[in-house]
Amino acid sequence: MKNGLPLAIDVVEAPASKIDAVDFENLVFGNVFTDHMMMCDYEDGEWQTPRIQPYGPIQLEPSAKVFHYGQAIFEGMKAFKDDEDQVWLFRPEANIDRFNRSSVRLAIPEFPKEVFLEGLETLLNLDRDWIKQGFGSSLYIRPFVIATEPGVSASPSKNYKFMIICSPAKAYYSGEVRVVFAEQFSRAANGGVGFAKAAGNYGAQFYPTNLAKQEGFQQIVWTDASTHEYLEEAGTMNIFFRVGDKLLTAPISDRILDGITRKSVIALAEEFKVPVEVRRVTVKEIVEAAEKGELKEMFGAGTAATINPIKGFGYQGKRYELPEQENSYASFFKTKLMEIQYNKAEDKFGWRYLVKEK
Amino acid sequence: MKNGLPLAIDVVEAPASKIDAVDFENLVFGNVFTDHMMMCDYEDGEWQTPRIQPYGPIQLEPSAKVFHYGQAIFEGMKAFKDDEDQVWLFRPEANIDRFNRSSVRLAIPEFPKEVFLEGLETLLNLDRDWIKQGFGSSLYIRPFVIATEPGVSASPSKNYKFMIICSPAKAYYSGEVRVVFAEQFSRAANGGVGFAKAAGNYGAQFYPTNLAKQEGFQQIVWTDASTHEYLEEAGTMNIFFRVGDKLLTAPISDRILDGITRKSVIALAEEFKVPVEVRRVTVKEIVEAAEKGELKEMFGAGTAATINPIKGFGYQGKRYELPEQENSYASFFKTKLMEIQYNKAEDKFGWRYLVKEK
Ligand SMILES: Cc1ncc(COP(=O)(O)O)c(C=O)c1O
Ligand SMILES: Cc1ncc(COP(=O)(O)O)c(C=O)c1O
Repeated sequence: MKNGLPLAIDVVEAPASKIDAVDFENLVFGNVFTDHMMMCDYEDGEWQTPRIQPYGPIQLEPSAKVFHYGQAIFEGMKAFKDDEDQVWLFRPEANIDRFNRSSVRLAIPEFPKEVFLEGLETLLNLDRDWIKQGFGSSLYIRPFVIATEPGVSASPSKNYKFMIICSPAKAYYSGEVRVVFAEQFSRAANGGVGFAKAAGNYGAQFYPTNLAKQEGFQQIVWTDASTHEYLEEAGTMNIFFRVGDKLLTAPISDRILDGITRKSVIALAEEFKVPVEVRRVTVKEIVEAAEKGELKEMFGAGTAATINPIKGFGYQGKRYELPEQENSYASFFKTKLMEIQYNKAEDKFGWRYLVKEK
Repeated sequence: MKNGLPLAIDVVEAPASKIDAVDFENLVFGNVFTDHMMMCDYEDGEWQTPRIQPYGPIQLEPSAKVFHYGQAIFEGMKAFKDDEDQVWLFRPEANIDRFNRSSVRLAIPEFPKEVFLEGLETLLNLDRDWIKQGFGSSLYIRPFVIATEPGVSASPSKNYKFMIICSPAKAYYSGEVRVVFAEQFSRAANGGVGFAKAAGNYGAQFYPTNLAKQEGFQQIVWTDASTHEYLEEAGTMNIFFRVGDKLLTAPISDRILDGITRKSVIALAEEFKVPVEVRRVTVKEIVEAAEKGELKEMFGAGTAATINPIKGFGYQGKRYELPEQENSYASFFKTKLMEIQYNKAEDKFGWRYLVKEK
């Protein structure tokens, strides 16, 4: 940052808001963006003055490295509005820390945490009206950084663009979700970038996911690439299994994203004395548990859906349906998390972060 | 394509050439681009009319999927000029086929082969003056396709932009190259996208390569992610080992790029009765061969450098230097390949492709 003034943000307000044209009852996830965006360029070896400006297109050279070498990472977080019109973030520092861990792995310079948070708060205050009250409504926040240096030699970019864009979201309902356990394709290698929110991790999943969809599954639960014996995570969610009354989930590794929803569920499980085991989970034990009727639930955990119940799974051509669950762990944890996010319950862990009005 | 007229290309010529401002004696790889570029948009489920227009920046929404999900692939090929000013490509159909295999894996619509080639030839004819005569001079050609649909939901883009940009290149000399065998980091997973020229494969290598550079190695030779026991390929080259008089190289797989230079070297080796074994090559056998003095050569094979001799390697903290080689395989194959590329030798295999003047 120039002049040692990291918190000086140039703000150019949009002349008029687009908000009246938006149908908040019929939002499609991630399609509509708010009036403003945050931007900061990395040049000459340092992050320049951050700017907030009207949302709009950006111009790049066709040889910009992001297009050729996928040197890009992102984050996904949400802002919530409570009944008093206060705006809250959920564990934002965990997102910022992960953003910078992803950056390091992709050879991208880290972004200063205070500037990230200060810029985000300024942006949220400008676009406050886009955050609607009501359980399930939220503002999805997408920070990302892309390599902008022109030139097609395969080496790290010298220039980068950091951005934050925001999209209003309503309660997430993805229909009934059935998953297939990966037997052939993989998401991440040992010693690779699976733990990072690297752009390339996502595009690489589209083709196998399309194949899964043709078989009637909405998502893939990835297994380890070496043996396909261990269940790891889904495309944008960590996965939990309930066997009997026990909750199981894979440990994080260099292949698995350290999900913030995941670790919040684990903390809540401990608080509420739900037995939880963080350990390698084999395909075999889950298939056997399903066959014996001991697999009570499966659910995904991630920022977009919070908790996403899974109705069934496929493996080696067989299909397994999970029973309807009266008092499901999925809805228990979803409610607990949302009560904290929407300022409707005590925040024992200090996860809630108030966006102060300025 | 509209109107069933795939070969109708809209051409807008640059009002003036930038060529006089270019110092062809001091080209840095991939930094300068020619006067024109080819472009074609995928919209409404089909490729639209291809265009050739002056080289210049492109505009995208900040939410364009390429930035977030790395849905992007590319190719790398070269054009050569012979002493009669004829322009040649080297096995272009192999590049186009691989381009489309990469696209399929990234859930990107394939690009019609005839339009690719027709567009490329038109572009090369417009920018003919940028291709200089002389052994080693060439025009580096970078076709690529990026996902342009705005929206941050993690799903395949509906819109894409296909482009070809070109950069003049002089004889490639990268200095003395020493490599390190990967012991911890990996490039590709079984069942992943390693065989594709997916953008994300490259950005993921920058950080481990930076670490290798700090240890005095220019490149990493990747090993299989499961065991790190098998030598696979380098960042942008396939790797050959000469043990005694035998040439060894790894078979292609879903982790390894099916390099065109690699398969040309194998074909030439067979023609010239150089014993060549395409099989899994262990780290152990190469280290042992080096210790016994039987490892005569290592070299990389790829479009950018053609053949890149390797002077030494590191493994488990030890460094191994390779002997100077009088009649090296590396220079033998490099010469044979370049003689074909520059129309200085018979083209037994039909690899040369004449770009017809129009
Ligand atoms: C691969 C992957 N796993 C898991 C998650 C869930 O992480 P979080 O709970 O932090 O949103 C995400 C989404 O962020 C993801 O992209
Ligand atoms: C990963 C990788 N391996 C090998 C190669 C060499 O392939 P080719 O000889 O077709 O250029 C390249 C470059 O294209 C590459 O990117």
